[in-house]
Amino acid sequence: MNFTCIGVGNVGRSWAVAFVRAGFQVRLWDKDSESLAKAQPLIRKALEDLAVIDSSLNIDKAFDLVQISETLQEAVVGADYVQESVAENVDIKRQVFTALEKHASKHCILASSTSAIPASEFLEHLSSPERCLIAHPVNPPHVIPLVELCGSPLTAPETLERTKSIMQKLGQTPIVLNKEVDGFILNRLQWALLGEAMHLVGEGYCSVEDIDLVLSKGLALRWAFMGPFEVGHLNATQGIQGYFDTLQDALKRVQNSLQTGYPPNTQLVSQAHTVLSKRIPVSDIPEFQAKRDQRILKLRRHLESTDLTADKNDT
Amino acid sequence: MNFTCIGVGNVGRSWAVAFVRAGFQVRLWDKDSESLAKAQPLIRKALEDLAVIDSSLNIDKAFDLVQISETLQEAVVGADYVQESVAENVDIKRQVFTALEKHASKHCILASSTSAIPASEFLEHLSSPERCLIAHPVNPPHVIPLVELCGSPLTAPETLERTKSIMQKLGQTPIVLNKEVDGFILNRLQWALLGEAMHLVGEGYCSVEDIDLVLSKGLALRWAFMGPFEVGHLNATQGIQGYFDTLQDALKRVQNSLQTGYPPNTQLVSQAHTVLSKRIPVSDIPEFQAKRDQRILKLRRHLESTDLTADKNDT
Repeated sequence: MNFTCIGVGNVGRSWAVAFVRAGFQVRLWDKDSESLAKAQPLIRKALEDLAVIDSSLNIDKAFDLVQISETLQEAVVGADYVQESVAENVDIKRQVFTALEKHASKHCILASSTSAIPASEFLEHLSSPERCLIAHPVNPPHVIPLVELCGSPLTAPETLERTKSIMQKLGQTPIVLNKEVDGFILNRLQWALLGEAMHLVGEGYCSVEDIDLVLSKGLALRWAFMGPFEVGHLNATQGIQGYFDTLQDALKRVQNSLQTGYPPNTQLVSQAHTVLSKRIPVSDIPEFQAKRDQRILKLRRHLESTDLTADKNDT
Repeated sequence: MNFTCIGVGNVGRSWAVAFVRAGFQVRLWDKDSESLAKAQPLIRKALEDLAVIDSSLNIDKAFDLVQISETLQEAVVGADYVQESVAENVDIKRQVFTALEKHASKHCILASSTSAIPASEFLEHLSSPERCLIAHPVNPPHVIPLVELCGSPLTAPETLERTKSIMQKLGQTPIVLNKEVDGFILNRLQWALLGEAMHLVGEGYCSVEDIDLVLSKGLALRWAFMGPFEVGHLNATQGIQGYFDTLQDALKRVQNSLQTGYPPNTQLVSQAHTVLSKRIPVSDIPEFQAKRDQRILKLRRHLESTDLTADKNDT
């Protein structure tokens, strides 16, 4: 299979790493020649970082699979799968997809990395909308496996199925949304939690650091290997049914007082910024991102080693 | 220091393990003689499970620190810290605390494990409310370190500080709430996410299994070692300030459409129950709980080994 990345900022570059790591060729194109020039050394650096965790990775062999294209057309002709990761702007995306479908082979899947624009807003004007969809990664996709697949109403079910299968071949973990929804699943869950966290800090119940501890020393020690429904199932002798029976009054009271729509007001954001910048100065963010990614990769390896029920082909 | 556990169901027993593991003596009492009789062998079993992960733990030495008391009075006299873990019933808790303050030494801290009853509803009628508070654990506390400390308006700040210091000595991770709130912090964050998860499954956007994957293959791979504010800080070149600037429109749209108050209706709960029971039959829950706890302990050891900035005395 031949892959293409259109747009090679942080997201596009990380997709390229995911493609070549799995042994596939990738062609890169970006309208900004500076981004394009920077892409190759940064991809090599990412492969070197991966090799620290995965000794079976052949850096040179993977890196040789990366090709730079002079034009969008050259990048797309003959590709089986194109991943678009250009700016989050609906007009730009519409134009890029018009160009993609003009040059791509009929069977080629055209996927967008957008996190914020619904598929129906930029994929329905096309003459072949059935092969277009959103494949929304978590940043960076070569480190975090989850990918959310979501079509427009005109996307063919077969396109979603084929993309799911491609993602599994890459070692990603795809989920398929049954219909469009703002923020897909991951950001909705993340922002529900973050909204209530802002409420609790903003109204003075606890600090930014307390919220972090509640996750890292509490909730996420279970969520790292089981979802919130399974947590409830194992918290009651009668399973999730018993969990809801026992907790219904407390749950209702809490649900009624949640403020997940709490706005990120200026004072709250600058309070969080001050706290975090003390530990992680803005100028050091790239260095901390690299450390974060290494830790996530080690964590995944650890979690796989303690998962006795996993289908080893699935991760 | 001498510890006492009043009520030795799942929660009380796990507290007892946390106390003796740290080298402190604990006396147990429960009004139900059957629970009391079962407590010792189950505590021994928990210590044996811990020893699998922690080779430095001396099972016999820790187990020798456990004593059964014949009466509440006998359990409490001379104790420095009492942890109450009886039924979640406000009248029962009021009675138990009345008895506790009658028999406990003046300096003794009296703490409740309640997750659902506000401190002001059962600690304010006492003649020494200043030394009483809630120390809400995550289940089971000898496995998950976070403890939420929350007083009534009559609790002395010194009691919160002393309890915080005791929890740190035990190897727990305490946070102190500045004022009362239903569900404290952990359950509010957990139920905000679970509420939106129910909404997404209940309205047909995705499946129960998809929600689990979004956590275990996505969100929790970061949350296991950093909070939601830090995630945002590292997702933007300009830190959390830049994160909110860039995302404000998308965030607002999602926040306005969240339904974290989505009720756990019968159909949804039985759908989740059916899915989960296929993998984890209700009769096997205790076995899966034991596996979960082993995995959490291994995960904590792994996370500590990759945390290069941690204060090693703090976990």
